[in-house]
Amino acid sequence: MTMKLYFAPGACSFVPHALLETAGAAYEPVLVKLHKGEQNEPAYRAINPRGQVPVLVDGGETITQIVAIVTYLDAKFPEQQFLPKDPLARTRVLETLAWMNNTVHPTFTHVFMPFKFAGTPETQAELKAFNAKVYAGLLGELEAMAQKAAGQGQAFLGGERFGPLDAYALTLLRWGGFAQIDPAGFPALWAHVQKVAQLPGVAKAIERERLQLNLYKAA
Amino acid sequence: MTMKLYFAPGACSFVPHALLETAGAAYEPVLVKLHKGEQNEPAYRAINPRGQVPVLVDGGETITQIVAIVTYLDAKFPEQQFLPKDPLARTRVLETLAWMNNTVHPTFTHVFMPFKFAGTPETQAELKAFNAKVYAGLLGELEAMAQKAAGQGQAFLGGERFGPLDAYALTLLRWGGFAQIDPAGFPALWAHVQKVAQLPGVAKAIERERLQLNLYKAA
Ligand SMILES: N[C@@H](CCC(=O)N[C@@H](CS)C(=O)NCC(=O)O)C(=O)O
Ligand SMILES: N[C@@H](CCC(=O)N[C@@H](CS)C(=O)NCC(=O)O)C(=O)O
Repeated sequence: MTMKLYFAPGACSFVPHALLETAGAAYEPVLVKLHKGEQNEPAYRAINPRGQVPVLVDGGETITQIVAIVTYLDAKFPEQQFLPKDPLARTRVLETLAWMNNTVHPTFTHVFMPFKFAGTPETQAELKAFNAKVYAGLLGELEAMAQKAAGQGQAFLGGERFGPLDAYALTLLRWGGFAQIDPAGFPALWAHVQKVAQLPGVAKAIERERLQLNLYKAA
Repeated sequence: MTMKLYFAPGACSFVPHALLETAGAAYEPVLVKLHKGEQNEPAYRAINPRGQVPVLVDGGETITQIVAIVTYLDAKFPEQQFLPKDPLARTRVLETLAWMNNTVHPTFTHVFMPFKFAGTPETQAELKAFNAKVYAGLLGELEAMAQKAAGQGQAFLGGERFGPLDAYALTLLRWGGFAQIDPAGFPALWAHVQKVAQLPGVAKAIERERLQLNLYKAA
């Protein structure tokens, strides 16, 4: 039984998508059309009652949550070292992964899906505007991380190997374009993301999702 | 050099606090008065630039993010098995831990600190009300988990050992009281939390933080 990854183009499911392609895994990518609301249809809710991507199915197991899927893929493909083996280096990667996942990502959700947090149009409009600014600040923190890695001659955000932080950084910077944030304003991060996009596995995931990296349009 | 845990009474830092006490760790608990804004003073920002608890300091290392701290403590105190050793069981615990951390916890932040997400008083009031309802729904998901564990005769949310899910569940249900949510509405979860509160390590953390478990007051 091969694995299945339920993903949506450009969504956070890009993180496991890029890892699976990098590992050369045998799996079936299953596209979920979020813009058509497929995640809320009974067929998909039967797979993930929370109505979100990503979902990884492996044999009889259905796994949700990026942090859990990443840890699972790290154990499944140990030769890839998606997470560092050294306990302290591993803790550092999990620290940044958790922060991307519990802070940066949800901040963008306020911009992209404000109706998840408030009912009235006025409130949703304020959420969008307020959190687009917060989001730019958080991308500034990511820029500092990319600068630090580059300054130390470290190839990837988590160390010497491509991993979840690089794939997540690509996704988060790309999302900035939807919030009128120019990636060129984060030069080290933007250079890193463009480099990561050329890795064969990452490039394959980008191609399947038909992603344009720079979504920014000057107002 | 002993460890230090920066914590605030009743905050999410209760999770590592309860784990450290359970492990009988040698560490210094350092109280940060969030209600007085100590997290935003230069002295604390020098420790955690993001101005949040928990922070674990171990020797020269400063570790933030519950997910990372929990993983670190699991590796440091292997005999406690805070996370299951079996890879699949471990993935399942991380899945729920990540969800508590990226969804349930931030939903409560909208109720408790709406100013983090919006500037105007009207919008903040709407955020509070809207997300208090969302929060009650999420506690319903936790109730289902507690029911399932009880139904299977499983002692704790993550398996046969006390771990981060139990400490987080206690914290999240307790927070519900601030949102006028009666814990008695979640009987399996409430019973579980009351049981967990009596474990010696958990009871010690509760005592140090002077926590009252049930904060609900009928309107
Ligand atoms: N906490 C989840 C978040 C997943 C998530 O936010 N998925 C989004 C796409 S980036 C989604 O499926 N949204 C559709 C919806 O919520 O309707 C994780 O870490 O996997
Ligand atoms: N993502 C962080 C969240 C930590 C957090 O939300 N801490 C809160 C207390 S529960 C805090 O320190 N708030 C003070 C503030 O933000 O000013 C983690 O997982 O550790």
